[in-house]
Formats: sequence, C-alpha cells, structure tokens
Amino acid sequence: MADKKKRRRPDPSSDDESHQPFKNQIKPDPVILQILQKLTDSVRAATEASSSSSKALTLADLALSESCREVADLSLSSVQSTIESLTLKIAHSILSGNGFAFDVPSRSAANQLYVPELDRIVLRDKTSLRPYASISTVRKATITARILQLIHQLCLKSIHVTKRDLFYTDVKLFTDQTQSDSVLDDVSCMLGCTRSSLNVIAAEKGVVVGRLIFSDNGDMIDCTKMGMGGKAIPPNIDRVGDMQSDALFILLVEKDAAYIRLAEDRFYNRFPCIIVTAKGQPDVATRLFLRKMKMELKLPVLALVDSDPYGLKILSVYGCGSKNMSYDSANLTTPDIKWLGIRPSDLDKYKIPEQCRLPMTEQDIKTGKDLLEEDFVKKNPGWVEELTLMVKTKQKAEIQALSTFGFQYLSEVYLPLKLQQQDWL
Amino acid sequence: MADKKKRRRPDPSSDDESHQPFKNQIKPDPVILQILQKLTDSVRAATEASSSSSKALTLADLALSESCREVADLSLSSVQSTIESLTLKIAHSILSGNGFAFDVPSRSAANQLYVPELDRIVLRDKTSLRPYASISTVRKATITARILQLIHQLCLKSIHVTKRDLFYTDVKLFTDQTQSDSVLDDVSCMLGCTRSSLNVIAAEKGVVVGRLIFSDNGDMIDCTKMGMGGKAIPPNIDRVGDMQSDALFILLVEKDAAYIRLAEDRFYNRFPCIIVTAKGQPDVATRLFLRKMKMELKLPVLALVDSDPYGLKILSVYGCGSKNMSYDSANLTTPDIKWLGIRPSDLDKYKIPEQCRLPMTEQDIKTGKDLLEEDFVKKNPGWVEELTLMVKTKQKAEIQALSTFGFQYLSEVYLPLKLQQQDWL
Repeated sequence: MADKKKRRRPDPSSDDESHQPFKNQIKPDPVILQILQKLTDSVRAATEASSSSSKALTLADLALSESCREVADLSLSSVQSTIESLTLKIAHSILSGNGFAFDVPSRSAANQLYVPELDRIVLRDKTSLRPYASISTVRKATITARILQLIHQLCLKSIHVTKRDLFYTDVKLFTDQTQSDSVLDDVSCMLGCTRSSLNVIAAEKGVVVGRLIFSDNGDMIDCTKMGMGGKAIPPNIDRVGDMQSDALFILLVEKDAAYIRLAEDRFYNRFPCIIVTAKGQPDVATRLFLRKMKMELKLPVLALVDSDPYGLKILSVYGCGSKNMSYDSANLTTPDIKWLGIRPSDLDKYKIPEQCRLPMTEQDIKTGKDLLEEDFVKKNPGWVEELTLMVKTKQKAEIQALSTFGFQYLSEVYLPLKLQQQDWL
Repeated sequence: MADKKKRRRPDPSSDDESHQPFKNQIKPDPVILQILQKLTDSVRAATEASSSSSKALTLADLALSESCREVADLSLSSVQSTIESLTLKIAHSILSGNGFAFDVPSRSAANQLYVPELDRIVLRDKTSLRPYASISTVRKATITARILQLIHQLCLKSIHVTKRDLFYTDVKLFTDQTQSDSVLDDVSCMLGCTRSSLNVIAAEKGVVVGRLIFSDNGDMIDCTKMGMGGKAIPPNIDRVGDMQSDALFILLVEKDAAYIRLAEDRFYNRFPCIIVTAKGQPDVATRLFLRKMKMELKLPVLALVDSDPYGLKILSVYGCGSKNMSYDSANLTTPDIKWLGIRPSDLDKYKIPEQCRLPMTEQDIKTGKDLLEEDFVKKNPGWVEELTLMVKTKQKAEIQALSTFGFQYLSEVYLPLKLQQQDWL
C-alpha cells in the first residue's frame, strides 16, 4: 500500500474510500455511454417528429377558452418602430382633444394561468387603462412615457444597459428602482416583446463548461478550453449564436461547489455533456442560455439540485417559469427537464448518513406542501411521490452531502450510476 | 436631425446628450494614451528598481521589534511532507508517554498588526497550545487532526474541494461549518502555507475581460475574445499561469453593471487595459488573480468603486487585506491600488444631480468615521481628504449615477477624462 499512497493520481480501485456504497455496481463507461446515446436519440426523435408533423405546440394552437398574452423576440428596429407608432397614436389622440391613456396588460396573480399542454405559466389577456388625465394614474403614465423614450434611445444606439442604469437616468421621476423595474415589465407586455428585446439586461451570474462551442458577441468560445473557471454566461442572449456540440446531454447544476467538482474532474470528457450552473437562483441570462442550448442542440436536460423544496422550486423556474415574468414564459422556460438528483429517495438508497441530513424547518415543510399543490408538480407522478416522501420524512440534504463518501463520489460513483440506471424523473 | 436619428450608431458628437458635462474637455485618444504609457512606465521602473537594488520589501527585511507570522505558497508535496512530519512528531510524543498537543497560532484581533512599510495587516507570532488531554480543547484538537488528515488526502489525490465539501466529509464531528472553516484557517497558519496550497478553494465569483492572455488548467484563454460575458476567474490560482498582456493598466471595477457597460463598449480596445470585477465583495479567487496580474505584468491598478464607505472598504480589502486572513496578507493583497473614482469630490465636480445622490445612513456615517481611523486610510492624505468630505456632506453615490448623463457617459466621458487628467489618488 505504501507505494500506492505516494502516487499523485491513485486509480479509483485503490482508493481510500473503497467502502463507497454502490461503487461495484458501476458498469464500464461504454455501456453507460450507450444508454445516454439512446436518451439523446429519443429526445432528438421526439423533437423532430413534433417539428415535422406539426410545429411545436404554441399558445395559438390550443384554442383556449380565454385568450392569453405572449411576447416574442423582436428586432431592435421593430421595437423602435412599435414605439414610434404608439407615440404617433398618442399624439393623434391628444391633438383630437381626447388626451391619452396607455392600455397596459395586467400582470397580477389573478391574471396568470398554468397551461398543462404547454407545461408553463402564461399571462391572461386582461388589460387596464392608464390615463394621463387622472390623479391616480398620472404618475405611472408619466413613468411609462419616460421608459418608452429611454428604450427608444437604446434602439437608436444599439447598446445594452442594466435595470439599474435605467433607474439612474431619471431618479427624480422614478424615486426608487422598483417603480422603473415594474413599468419596464409593463412596457415589455405592451409592446409584445421580451425584455431582452428592449436591450435591458440583468447582471450575469451563470457559468458554462464542457462540450459546447458558441459565439459571444462575435468571438468563438470553445467551452472545453475554459479551464476550471468555465465561461461566464453572457448577459445578452441576442449576441449568442452558432451553437455546436457533440454532447449527449446537458447537466444543469444548482450550486457552485458541485459545478467546480465536475469541472475539475472534466466529467464532460468521460460522459460528453455540457455543464451549466446559475450558482443558486436561476437568473434570466442563464434561463435564456439553457433554453437556447436545449432548442438548438436538441439535448436532454438532467438536473442536479439539493434535496429540499428550494431545489425543486429552482427546477420549476427553469422548467415552467416564474409568475413575475409569465408574459415571457415561452422564451424563458426549458421544457422537459429531468430530475436526476439529489432526490429524497436517494437519501436512503445511497445510505447518506443521518448526520449529513438536515431537519426541515417549519418554513421548508410549508414550501414543500405548497409545491405539492402546484400544477407543474402534480402532472409528474414521480415528482409528487418524491416530494411527498420529503415532506413525510422532514429531512433535506445538499448535493455536497455526497462528499461524506469521498470528495469525488459525486463524479465517480453517484452520477455514473444514476446515468447507467437511467434514474431520472 | 431626422436622418441622424435613424443611424444605429450615431457619432458621439451628434449624441442626444450633447449637454454632457466636460465632454468638450476630452483630448484626442493619442494624448491620453501617452499619459497612460507614462504611468505604466513609472510603475514598471519602480518595480524594477526595487527588485534590482534590493528585493521587494518583505516582513523579514523590516527587523520589527516583534516577530510576525506569514504563510507562503507551498507545493502539494511539501504540504504532504509537512503534515507527515507533524504526524510523526505527534506519534513520538504519544509513544514517549507525553500525549500530544497542537501549537496553534492565534488569529484574534489582538494578534494583528498593520505594518505601514508593507502597507498591509500581518499576524503577530503568538500561539496557544491545543492539548488533546484537556476537556476544554479535546474537541478542537480532534477536529484539527481530522482536517489535517483530509488535507493529506487532497494532496495524495491532487484535487481541489470547497470548504463545504470538507465540512460534509464529517458532519458528525464538525457539527457546523464554521467549526471546520475556522480550524482550516488554523491549519493554514500551523503548516505555514496559504489556504490555496491546501487545495481548499472558495466558490468563484469574479470575471475578467480585456487585453490579457493566460492559461487556466492548461487551456490558453484570450480575454479579448470572450465576448461580453468575459472569462470566469478560476477558483484555483495554482493552475493559472503564462500571463501575457499589452495593456497599460488594470481597471478594477466594484460592480457588475459598470463592468457590463465597459465590456460591451470594448473600452479595453480604445484604452488598452484589463477589466476585472468580483461583483461586490472581493472573494479570495479574485484577490489572488488581481495580485498575480499586478506582479507578473507590473501594471498600475486603477479602481472604480461606489462613492460610499463600502467602496473604500472594498478597495482596502484588495489593497491591504482583511483581518480574518491576515496570516496570508502577503499573497492576497495588491499593493499600490489607485482610487480613480467615483470619489466624493467627483459628485460636485461632475455635477451629479442631487436626486442621484443618496443620503448616508447612520451606519454609513459610522463606517466612514471608523475608516478614517484605519492606518491604511491615514497614510494616504488624498484618501483622508475625500473620506472627510464624504462624512461631512453625508452624501453617497453609486457608479451607476453617471447614467444620468446618458448610458455611455461612464465609458465615453468620465473615464477618458479621469485618465487624461491623471485624476487618481
């Protein structure tokens, strides 16, 4: 043993942690790769079938009893001309002695709808008038006009700014940033375009590494050559393009620590994949990037999140959107994400020791129970079963809990075995 | 005007914001570039003079009345053999019937010292015994032994893990992460090596873009070809190398929004520079990366932070370290960072409107006054003057406040003029 101990990279079988559970069940990599190839093929076949027989299902195809509102990606020049037409209409209205009012879509909870056929939240069609000549709405109407003017400037200059920049251009009028942010969402809805089409972006947070090549603002990026740090996901998706990949799947990781482990071990070379994380709560840039990868590369998406209600919540935001931005759910959501792990049933299955599990707080349990009532959970019986188990056992665990069996248990045992057993829901 | 309005990229002189203050004072770029070249030359000359006449000043050169403790970057094999010698010493002590105790450096505030000659905080030499055969220290001694064993494993495997991973390998013993984290710092001090030498890394947060080429884990990265997203700063500095650059300076930016503006405008192409941000509080990885750039490329570092006490605090952490990690200040700090902006005197000078300034809270004012007592502020009369002005006017402002003069005022007017006027402290 002594000479083996001196080796810098001991082979896994001589590992200190040879007591790692399930290690002996892992089949040779080619077997697992074959399984993954089948998964990818089936996702591709399904995508192609739906796109050849009929286009992908959209809100318009459904003929719902009530009409809904959706936005689309518009070019800068369309945004510009839409604003200009709106302004002309307003000028006419003023000149004809009628004053003016904006017709603003309502974004309240009562105006939201979960559509099971699409598996995402959408916005109903209710709008409300925002007249300038009314004490209760004059302020908001003024802010709306100012935001429209600022967006028009961005179109002329073809630059991107953050919400914070937007706020600071007229602090006197906006008073605080929640007001300009909220009207910005109103303006998106009114113009019928995505917030990214307005060239207003959020701070970047996510990183990507693995078998992906894409262009960012004209530069070609090879994500297998990004070392351990990975490539920061660009804040403006409209300058991302030319995606190419030989990956078999996308691995969506909730947290940084697990991402670092997989990046250092170059997991994507053993099992060809693209690894992406938003480091916690999904931000808009990462959601747009994930969707774009899924759509262009037609790859299955497997999610690795903590075994707690927030892990599932995060999965649901990627999968079917947040209520706050339901008007843009078509662009922000990635359909058909599989829950790979850590799942509540894994805690016993993988013999996670008691001391690595954490008791759920009252708030955790409430969040878990609320999730059980959500449509997007209900439609997946496997998820309901897992979440019911979590709420029953009142135990949660982080991805990092797997380190109890050795630092590389995640990349060398847990994930290979999950993939081999096709153990996703 | 109408035809100009239609142009996608209007030239700056036909800008909507032609009322931008100071715009007419900006000289042609070659003039500003010449000024920057002089700055860079002087920094290089100073670095070379100090390294040829004598080596850079270290703690050892100072012959302080009291001895201080510093750590160094050690190779994995040295860390491994240091742990092995320590273990042998302990075994001898046990076998000779004396039991064992760790001799642990104290990291308390009373054991810290600011050294003006070095311009950073260092750790004094006081240590305390941590015997196993004592009820009050048996637990901590056990944790210390366990952490040493885990680090030894990391050496054998040559992998990196996060603090969170380390905690989860023995939750039963550590109980909560603050305990394993704190002993990890003890172990760094005891072994006399940096925390990165132990292969325990923090989550990554920073990004870099601009005129820099470097290798990350063997991959060559060209930061002019990273689009707008930039390159995520690697969490493990020991795998970063081969830095090359034709930049004239490093621009250290506090926040994401300003970073995005400069990256989209490719500011680094107009004024050759490297732009780096930790997106708020500086993390260890970004601090190590900044120091490495400064040392290898011998470039001046100019900082762009908010005009509030926290902006200056952040500057000070980059510049002379945090108290918590003073034992490693030699490796974590970047000497001679210049405060470019936003400085309290800029608020009037650049006519930032009243409504874009924010009143300081009681806590802000207290933090500002506390900073005035700190040695690293006192030694720079310009900083004292600025901070005194801030506390007196009770006003603060974010970098984003400049957007009030147009979204690109930062990159097109404020920064060029600052550079032209050599307006840094």
